[in-house]
Amino acid sequence: MVAFAVLIFVFLGSVEGFSTKSSHALTTRRRFVSGFLGMKIATYANARTTLEARKGVGKAFITAFRSGAVMGFLLAANGLLVLYITINLFKLYYGDDWEGLFEAITGYGLGGSSMALFGRVGGGIYTKAADVGADLVGKVERNIPEADPRNPAVIADNVGDNVRDIAGMGSDLFGSYAESSCAALVVASISSFGMDHDFTAMCYPLLISSMGILVCLITTLFATDFFEIKAVKEIEPALKNQLIISTALMTVGIAIYDCLFSVELLLNNQCMLFYRQLFLCVAIGLWAGLIIGFVTEYYTSNAYSPVQDVADSCRTGAATNVIFGLALGYKSVIIPIFAIAIAIFVSFTFAAMYGITVAALGMLSTIATGLAIDAYGPISDNAGGIAEMAGMSHWIRERTDALDAAGNTTAAIGKGFAIGSAALVSLALFGAFVSWASISTVDVLTPEVFIGLIVGAMLPYWFSAMTMKSVGSAALKMVEEVRRQFSTIPGLMEGLAKPDYATCVKISTDASIKEMIPPCALVMLTPLIVGIFFRVETLSGVLAGALVSGVQIAISASNTGGAWDNAKKYIEVGASEHARTLGPKGSEPHKAAVIGDTIGDPLKDTSGPSLNILIKLMAVESLVFAPFFATHGGILFKIFQVERHFTKPYGISILHQPFCSNGISSLVLSYHTGLV
Amino acid sequence: MVAFAVLIFVFLGSVEGFSTKSSHALTTRRRFVSGFLGMKIATYANARTTLEARKGVGKAFITAFRSGAVMGFLLAANGLLVLYITINLFKLYYGDDWEGLFEAITGYGLGGSSMALFGRVGGGIYTKAADVGADLVGKVERNIPEADPRNPAVIADNVGDNVRDIAGMGSDLFGSYAESSCAALVVASISSFGMDHDFTAMCYPLLISSMGILVCLITTLFATDFFEIKAVKEIEPALKNQLIISTALMTVGIAIYDCLFSVELLLNNQCMLFYRQLFLCVAIGLWAGLIIGFVTEYYTSNAYSPVQDVADSCRTGAATNVIFGLALGYKSVIIPIFAIAIAIFVSFTFAAMYGITVAALGMLSTIATGLAIDAYGPISDNAGGIAEMAGMSHWIRERTDALDAAGNTTAAIGKGFAIGSAALVSLALFGAFVSWASISTVDVLTPEVFIGLIVGAMLPYWFSAMTMKSVGSAALKMVEEVRRQFSTIPGLMEGLAKPDYATCVKISTDASIKEMIPPCALVMLTPLIVGIFFRVETLSGVLAGALVSGVQIAISASNTGGAWDNAKKYIEVGASEHARTLGPKGSEPHKAAVIGDTIGDPLKDTSGPSLNILIKLMAVESLVFAPFFATHGGILFKIFQVERHFTKPYGISILHQPFCSNGISSLVLSYHTGLV
Repeated sequence: MVAFAVLIFVFLGSVEGFSTKSSHALTTRRRFVSGFLGMKIATYANARTTLEARKGVGKAFITAFRSGAVMGFLLAANGLLVLYITINLFKLYYGDDWEGLFEAITGYGLGGSSMALFGRVGGGIYTKAADVGADLVGKVERNIPEADPRNPAVIADNVGDNVRDIAGMGSDLFGSYAESSCAALVVASISSFGMDHDFTAMCYPLLISSMGILVCLITTLFATDFFEIKAVKEIEPALKNQLIISTALMTVGIAIYDCLFSVELLLNNQCMLFYRQLFLCVAIGLWAGLIIGFVTEYYTSNAYSPVQDVADSCRTGAATNVIFGLALGYKSVIIPIFAIAIAIFVSFTFAAMYGITVAALGMLSTIATGLAIDAYGPISDNAGGIAEMAGMSHWIRERTDALDAAGNTTAAIGKGFAIGSAALVSLALFGAFVSWASISTVDVLTPEVFIGLIVGAMLPYWFSAMTMKSVGSAALKMVEEVRRQFSTIPGLMEGLAKPDYATCVKISTDASIKEMIPPCALVMLTPLIVGIFFRVETLSGVLAGALVSGVQIAISASNTGGAWDNAKKYIEVGASEHARTLGPKGSEPHKAAVIGDTIGDPLKDTSGPSLNILIKLMAVESLVFAPFFATHGGILFKIFQVERHFTKPYGISILHQPFCSNGISSLVLSYHTGLV
Repeated sequence: MVAFAVLIFVFLGSVEGFSTKSSHALTTRRRFVSGFLGMKIATYANARTTLEARKGVGKAFITAFRSGAVMGFLLAANGLLVLYITINLFKLYYGDDWEGLFEAITGYGLGGSSMALFGRVGGGIYTKAADVGADLVGKVERNIPEADPRNPAVIADNVGDNVRDIAGMGSDLFGSYAESSCAALVVASISSFGMDHDFTAMCYPLLISSMGILVCLITTLFATDFFEIKAVKEIEPALKNQLIISTALMTVGIAIYDCLFSVELLLNNQCMLFYRQLFLCVAIGLWAGLIIGFVTEYYTSNAYSPVQDVADSCRTGAATNVIFGLALGYKSVIIPIFAIAIAIFVSFTFAAMYGITVAALGMLSTIATGLAIDAYGPISDNAGGIAEMAGMSHWIRERTDALDAAGNTTAAIGKGFAIGSAALVSLALFGAFVSWASISTVDVLTPEVFIGLIVGAMLPYWFSAMTMKSVGSAALKMVEEVRRQFSTIPGLMEGLAKPDYATCVKISTDASIKEMIPPCALVMLTPLIVGIFFRVETLSGVLAGALVSGVQIAISASNTGGAWDNAKKYIEVGASEHARTLGPKGSEPHKAAVIGDTIGDPLKDTSGPSLNILIKLMAVESLVFAPFFATHGGILFKIFQVERHFTKPYGISILHQPFCSNGISSLVLSYHTGLV
């Protein structure tokens, strides 16, 4: 991060009037602090939940949920507060130069997202190396139960759950949140808001987020205080209702803003249409997020037919299971993409790029509730692990398992939500980038944009190939170490000796740090290389291509993985007549389902969610370096002297490339007249 | 097809001066004839190759290769001849209206591609239903060898090989060929070539193809006459050399054109730069195709490390095999995409959209050699099946197996080639479409284009989900029938009674015809629905999105499937020390490899190659309906009265959408002044 901050300082130092270094360093530290505190809370909460599970499922649920909520509110409130303070501090330095001020603020988004990259990619490799390593040797070779303390990789697996779902998901959503706020501020700063120095209007994005925190606080009470959880089957509806309640309340909340602004504007004899339009933008983002969440649930929960069909296909073996699972993932892309497309179209029609930024903020306004539900999952999961390892009675383990099952579904919703918001945020950043880089059109019909588009659409595949191979090789190292410990430590299988947990933790840590370098380098260097050697138009193409292609792979990979996971659980639990014909554990269909689940692990926990960061980080990085690219970029074009005309700094740029028939005509014309 | 022709007639009849019906019907019949003759040749060739295999591997190779070549030259020559005749016939009707004439000729491309859709999708479902059905019951349940005459599905499987690789691949490449010629003609017709009524210049695309036929004729002699195949290991290099020789000769061929034109132009005291530029466009397309072919080979042949690594991952089970296979497919996308991107950039820079159309023609100019090599595969495969069924001695079977193994690698090259050319052709058609629909910019930054882009990028996933599920359910039907015959026909297992082959053929036929309706409807209706309800800009976005996303999935799906297939063969054959540690047949790693191979079947033979047609057909359909969409399209926008300004019929259209800061400014401006 220090090296990257230096890079920003050197590159942007060459462009007059920019200094984003401090903001970037500040956020990086902030994200680190947030991630650190989140992990601290989660690890304390695990043990507390296990203890509360002795008193009953309701008490345990409240403990796990409240702990998740602490993490959610910490991120949302902290993010908002620090952003506000940073803006005010930077105002002292930048004074009246609001464009410079808010461009510098984008460093805040970049910091958030670079940490998220390490959280998602590194965390994904960490957790899956430990998980696959623990399962392959412990469950398959040694035939000991999951989370058994005799397994040397069991601690690494528990740590991995926290790293992936607390640090990874938290930093992903925090990154989205920071970036969409920054994008909204940048777009607003070069509009009349910024030109008129109307600070209240500029703070509209922050107002949305602050209303979100209030709404989420009230929503939390519905889960813990207004109603009491008495039975296991009430847990999942209670969690899902959280999302619906927060979305409904948030819609009311922004409607109240609308009324307040309307009254103020009417008193000043001004038209109120603009804030009404913004209200619609926020609302459409909010509801699109809810739809994506519930479609994700439909395709990944074993309460519905898609996952049941996948489970049924295990009858004819692992191959049909994989074919049906992949087909399910592909199919699950359809509705979320339409939801995103409609949200983009409506919000852009009402308020151009600014509309998209506030739609993204709308989708993320209920982030505190989303994170609470999401963090609840690994907390319950680890509570179960602690109960197993502490040798507590089996009815405590049953309660924590029930908590965990509900958490699995909501974790899938959280992933859908994270991808949907990443798509909107990245488009918003893209919009902010093109306005800064003085690009007026990104014309697919020019070769420079089209090659960017097709290469950009390829990047998610390259990135996925890297991360999937990383998980594979890290898992192999873990397998070797676990095997070594089982064969060299005497009395380990009998429970007489303690395994060397620390070495397994170290292997996961080292592997994740080492293996995440190539994929992270791909993400962080691509915008720099394209921006420096090609034109900003090519970079725009790359961003658009990576966005439209990455969203699809991210959704399909996450849902395919989630469906396989729950198809396996469906067969294991055997809750219905149909499920019992496929089971029990150890049957041929169950073995096929386990293969699917293992394939799904890197898809749903490493490569899929990491793609969110890929599309966001490339966009925010382009935005941060936009002033540099606009001034010094396009070296290759300069060398080959492809001419380019600008009419005015931020005006319409005339593309010299001859188009279709005109191109032919002009070329043929030249040859006819002998001019060339 | 009749219903579709009526639709074209009705829709385009409403636009003055168009009548493409006859051309479309003509091509459909022509395609049908080509497919029919190709299949006839292939089925005769199978038996002849088996018989020649008695005389030696060299004789058998020559028979199989020459039969493939007949099919290749039939398609290439027939396509060119009929296109030339059609142009001259239509000239009688259209007279001096060349724009109308060549727009009508696009019906030729549409006819070719719609037949290809049925060939690829229907053929893919047909062959995989028979293949999976025959294997699951015959090899797994009844433990009888592959291609055993006792298996009821064995005939359906052999028929399927022909349908898929002869009819499917032939119609795919023929479609690309017809479409790129049409795209080149349309683009040329609205350039000065068309305006000046310069018929010789207009025929430049046809000249490239005719030179290609000559070059391929000479190339064929290198395989059959100049050198003689004596040993098995000489087969694969001989086939691969075909591609290199034809590419090198073709480069010389177009260079000769260049010289001829130069001399003529110099005599007329004109500049020759334009044809020199076109030469470079053709050459870059040609060589990009060769690179894509060899990269495909590298990633799918078990002579190289990628497939060997996948085979090695079978040690830890099917799950790691699938993970490594998927990662390999993703990785194999990188170089082909760069090759396509460079070809697009260079050819567009030299001659705008026309450059891309001739680059596509350049890539396809060696189509006769490509098809010869490709058709060689299923001919050898079926020759083996006939040897097995006819109870011929095992050394004949060994010879045909050796022929088949070489065919597998070249089939993968053919697939890579088909995808690469599909990408270029579809971009060329896209270019022809935008020029006809009077679109001057397809700006990603407008919401109408962006939603098209993201929805378009989703379509390949939707389509793949449909085709993969179709294969699954068709295979299940086949499994039931084969099981029924084994249990109800007495003496079948003992070889005393003959199975009912016809019922299995009927099941595959019925299933493929029924199951291909939904995916085909998706492909054929999407451009119509988008074009009628939305603007041509949105349709452009859909085409670009489907292109950049579809190419990636097509390449990765084909290569993943090919790698799994060859990883299985690598373990089975056991040619190296490493391979023998994984085998033999029936070992745990081999079982894991078989699961991978089964998953790969629908990926590499159904959903992957069908995507070529998806991206091409949607583009050519948009081109055919372009005049209608430009006149009557955008109903939704008209209803909601979103205004639009055209400056002149084919000129620059000003997009009304407010952009970024300007958008905000104008909106905020309105609110400040109370105008809204």
